[in-house]
Amino acid sequence: MDVPIDPHSSRALYRQLADELRSKIYSGELKPGAQLPTERELMEQFDASRNTVRLALGQLANEGLTVSGRGRGHFVRASAPLLFLATRSESPDRRANTANDAWTTDVTAQGRTPAQTIEVSIVRPPQNVASLLELEEGETTALRTRLRTVDGEANSLSMSYFPMSIVATTEIVQPDDIVRGANRVLAEIGHDQVRYLDQITARMPTPDERDALRIGAGIPVHEHVRVGYDADDVPVRVAVTVLPADRHIIQYELANAQ
Amino acid sequence: MDVPIDPHSSRALYRQLADELRSKIYSGELKPGAQLPTERELMEQFDASRNTVRLALGQLANEGLTVSGRGRGHFVRASAPLLFLATRSESPDRRANTANDAWTTDVTAQGRTPAQTIEVSIVRPPQNVASLLELEEGETTALRTRLRTVDGEANSLSMSYFPMSIVATTEIVQPDDIVRGANRVLAEIGHDQVRYLDQITARMPTPDERDALRIGAGIPVHEHVRVGYDADDVPVRVAVTVLPADRHIIQYELANAQ
Repeated sequence: MDVPIDPHSSRALYRQLADELRSKIYSGELKPGAQLPTERELMEQFDASRNTVRLALGQLANEGLTVSGRGRGHFVRASAPLLFLATRSESPDRRANTANDAWTTDVTAQGRTPAQTIEVSIVRPPQNVASLLELEEGETTALRTRLRTVDGEANSLSMSYFPMSIVATTEIVQPDDIVRGANRVLAEIGHDQVRYLDQITARMPTPDERDALRIGAGIPVHEHVRVGYDADDVPVRVAVTVLPADRHIIQYELANAQ
Repeated sequence: MDVPIDPHSSRALYRQLADELRSKIYSGELKPGAQLPTERELMEQFDASRNTVRLALGQLANEGLTVSGRGRGHFVRASAPLLFLATRSESPDRRANTANDAWTTDVTAQGRTPAQTIEVSIVRPPQNVASLLELEEGETTALRTRLRTVDGEANSLSMSYFPMSIVATTEIVQPDDIVRGANRVLAEIGHDQVRYLDQITARMPTPDERDALRIGAGIPVHEHVRVGYDADDVPVRVAVTVLPADRHIIQYELANAQ
């Protein structure tokens, strides 16, 4: 019997109980998918009231650590996060692979099955994108929106914006997949991206994102924004990727020689 | 009068209203710190019930976009996010700056006033850190924990773990600030970090983090984990930084030649 709860502590009992369960989840003692002890078991183990136990379990659910099925108990959220390989996806050797786009290649390499649907539209982009692309007032962009699935489950949303002044006569405005990737098309018309600026924010999903990506309670999203600049330092693409945080780790590999 | 709400849409009215307000926040029409129209004004403007208006406002608060003061209305969350400069902080020229640590330098350069308190302890690290440091069972680490403030407000938590087998006889185990930075100390004892592996996750804060960093409802945290490897590919440091997402953008600048 674990008795980590100290009734004389100034820390609320439910918080002490939540701490104890959380540390078992973080340490791996309670593994992804594992069932937590029942409310009754927790009440006995920790000599706590039902109310204290429920508050602690609610706290863990709010943090996105556990899920509960009606009357079926509480479970550690099963997660097999996918690595979003920020430095690898668009490296030169990857860019030279014209058989598959970078994301498809990366997901396949992790033993998962990728798929995506694409929509192409002409839009005035949101203010932050317009400003990153240094657009004039009213200038339009081609927007390629991809809803991506992995192993048949909704996975992420990717929106790439390209100034119409650059891409109007290219495949980028066609409503089809570009197998060799839009970056390659940009390179072919003289706008190879030689540097990137990445900005990563995290926030709660909008209701639309929650629906489209099946995001559970207490789960935020990463918003990964990449601006690609050509050799003349012109921003030629802004890629916004929305990644549910329970399913994605963003990874960078950096040589410290830069 | 805006009438974007369509009662015949299949989309719930409160969601349409939340969409409308959200897009005004994202577009900058409603700026950080601005007051939203009152419940009564929204009811009139959108011909909506009080319940619909409240659901919409609640949705925006849950997304962390707005805050409300009791009886004082609803406001767009004021944000002046700090850039966490992941590629710049520890670049060679920065590392050569021995007068200030990298974080202090970066924050000062953004016109803000940094401060930090430090605690040093010897711990068995959490499982994920132990595994990133490739520790043997039971091996200990020096842990340097910094609570950082910017302009006098709690800002972020930084925890750096170093294998005791490497740092036991260095300043790193002293409970004092190291002005030239712990990375420099590592370099001096032959463990200059030549490459990094960064992994970024996002999650809701724990209650302790919420208290320590004054994190409001609906605001997730970034967890930025950096592993530093020396020239022999030995992991010599794991730095875990917890960044409230309303106050931080993580930024990477990448040359596409790597």
